[in-house]
Amino acid sequence: MKTQVVIIGGGPSGLLLGQLLHTRGIEAVVLERKTRDYVLGRIRAGVLESGLVDLLEEAGVADRLHREGQRHTGTQIAAGGEMFGVAFSALTDRHVTVYGQTEVTQDLYDAREAAGLRTEFLVEDVVIHGADGDAPFVTYTQGGSERRIDCDFVAGCDGFHGVSRKTIPEDVRREYEKVYPFGWLGILSRTPPVHEELIYANSERGFALCSMRNENLSRYYIQCDLSDSPEDWSDEAFWAELKRRLPDHVAKDLVTGPSIEKSIAPLRSFVTEPMRWGRLFLCGDAAHIVPPTGAKGLNTAASDVHYLYEGLRQFYETGESEGIDRYSERALLRVWKAERFSWWFSSLLHRYPEQTAFDLKMQEAEIAFLRDNEAQQRAFAENYVGLPY
Amino acid sequence: MKTQVVIIGGGPSGLLLGQLLHTRGIEAVVLERKTRDYVLGRIRAGVLESGLVDLLEEAGVADRLHREGQRHTGTQIAAGGEMFGVAFSALTDRHVTVYGQTEVTQDLYDAREAAGLRTEFLVEDVVIHGADGDAPFVTYTQGGSERRIDCDFVAGCDGFHGVSRKTIPEDVRREYEKVYPFGWLGILSRTPPVHEELIYANSERGFALCSMRNENLSRYYIQCDLSDSPEDWSDEAFWAELKRRLPDHVAKDLVTGPSIEKSIAPLRSFVTEPMRWGRLFLCGDAAHIVPPTGAKGLNTAASDVHYLYEGLRQFYETGESEGIDRYSERALLRVWKAERFSWWFSSLLHRYPEQTAFDLKMQEAEIAFLRDNEAQQRAFAENYVGLPY
Repeated sequence: MKTQVVIIGGGPSGLLLGQLLHTRGIEAVVLERKTRDYVLGRIRAGVLESGLVDLLEEAGVADRLHREGQRHTGTQIAAGGEMFGVAFSALTDRHVTVYGQTEVTQDLYDAREAAGLRTEFLVEDVVIHGADGDAPFVTYTQGGSERRIDCDFVAGCDGFHGVSRKTIPEDVRREYEKVYPFGWLGILSRTPPVHEELIYANSERGFALCSMRNENLSRYYIQCDLSDSPEDWSDEAFWAELKRRLPDHVAKDLVTGPSIEKSIAPLRSFVTEPMRWGRLFLCGDAAHIVPPTGAKGLNTAASDVHYLYEGLRQFYETGESEGIDRYSERALLRVWKAERFSWWFSSLLHRYPEQTAFDLKMQEAEIAFLRDNEAQQRAFAENYVGLPY
Repeated sequence: MKTQVVIIGGGPSGLLLGQLLHTRGIEAVVLERKTRDYVLGRIRAGVLESGLVDLLEEAGVADRLHREGQRHTGTQIAAGGEMFGVAFSALTDRHVTVYGQTEVTQDLYDAREAAGLRTEFLVEDVVIHGADGDAPFVTYTQGGSERRIDCDFVAGCDGFHGVSRKTIPEDVRREYEKVYPFGWLGILSRTPPVHEELIYANSERGFALCSMRNENLSRYYIQCDLSDSPEDWSDEAFWAELKRRLPDHVAKDLVTGPSIEKSIAPLRSFVTEPMRWGRLFLCGDAAHIVPPTGAKGLNTAASDVHYLYEGLRQFYETGESEGIDRYSERALLRVWKAERFSWWFSSLLHRYPEQTAFDLKMQEAEIAFLRDNEAQQRAFAENYVGLPY
């Protein structure tokens, strides 16, 4: 079997790349380790930068997003019992769209199936061969049978634990990592969001985030110990702790209800360099992880997809390899900016075990500077809505 | 003996306060532990915010500064072998003035003497009495004699090691501190500055700063180990190390020469709260220390002097105590902003022993964001030229 691009991983990055390539007549096969339902069962963030929305439009999968997505023109920051807003639209002329990653993925699968594009599910033992040569191919097993696909390029969209990154030899790879000394305990509940905008809260009991998927589906998080497990936290305990971390005038409006999902996520910053090795290109979580503060995960994956799509399109349309040759450099330039923002925003809002009284005062002063200084607000807003590709 | 305000400390803060009070006919006595020549022998920074220049004008001591001071409308940041400028004037309509702290102090002494105002030198064993009551007084010895001055208020402008802060009972004081794990080795040389603007350099060998006093007097610094002593560093070793920390195209223009001063300063962030206890007010280094990166020491002392001068003037002119009652709150609000900026700018430019590869990448990304993002440049410039009082 032969195709132009093998995309390893049927999450949103791989599907978006596949759909974009399809609009240019470039053929791709997507290999997914799990099933479509499994992929759609993963709860992830849902704050989309306008750059990602533009890509979804270009891929022809933005109709439902435009109908159901919520336009957010600002966000709220709470600290010291008070809250202030940062108005993106006034500062940048742009906004973000709240629309669950699960919904994006579903729209991409629907479009992929409608176009009759090929996705192989439940593939195992994926191996990438000859990525450093001119004739790469991918082997895998599926239902007990061994398969092989020859291709021009391989896109590694298979996440942090996938095979793609590990295919790049260790002596070529340079990895950077920070593991944060806490996690996020998150719940999803069928309740109206406490505020029309997201609330990022710094409190002396730790970070909290009030987010949402739609007008009757809320997503809340609190910073927790890494040793906690979701079973340690009853819904009542979660709601009580969340309220303690919000300003009183916000907490009193919080509508609580039974959780329909509850989980703990660790926080990590991670980047591997380079993001290209021969004919293998890493996209999204396969190459980098951000802590979820500021919701840059999917958005940064999308910027990788943008650069890779532009490079492949140039290659197939003109024969020029400048775009794919510079893919790693271009993608990483923006990746490090998103890493910096996510790290900074995490540092601004969480309690760290090693923080001194002086460190806490610096956090407080940094939040006050953001509250009071328009230039700082604009720098924040430009990052939050997404730096240009 | 009786006066209205006893000012403890004959450095620039105390002298500036005395001169400002004099313009309103408020009588003050300055007590200085050393001699005028000793005070003028201390080498300090020399980058003045426009707020400080305005205060010096109001005090009538800005003539020589306007003649000899250099107007700096931007600064240079070097990293990774490259250098870029931040243009304050384009971003903020303001600038800074390069004029040595020693010159400011000399102008203030000249004015003080010309006005026949009283300064007591070589005072020892200063004790502040009754600051928490209505009738404070200060005792000291001078030339073996015991002296006493009764007053309305005491201004503690006597620095980090002075008696003023320690007069506030420990159970009232809250202190915040960060000690940095490195020092600055500085030299002064009669050579033309390598650049017309200051250069702040982040290099893999550590921080360096190219500063100046005038067109033939340069001040250079390099980050050094706290265990180093100036005798460990020959002039040749200093110049060689400085060149290694600058971009090649800058290092090749460096004019070297014999040092006329060479010293090592530790870096510390420190704040005490409150800055007022009854009729005692702390100003400048008596209440707070910043690391020298960004030159906020004297400038932040000046903002304290501004708030205290306004409060005392209001009290003597109208009998209202609102200004002195809110002195601590107002001064600290700006102090913490300067502390944040100095801490952030230090963090951006130095090598820290505990930095990981990821931390270094964050430093690099932060510098790149400052280089590339106009809003971030404006936030930086507004801090550098001085936030409004």
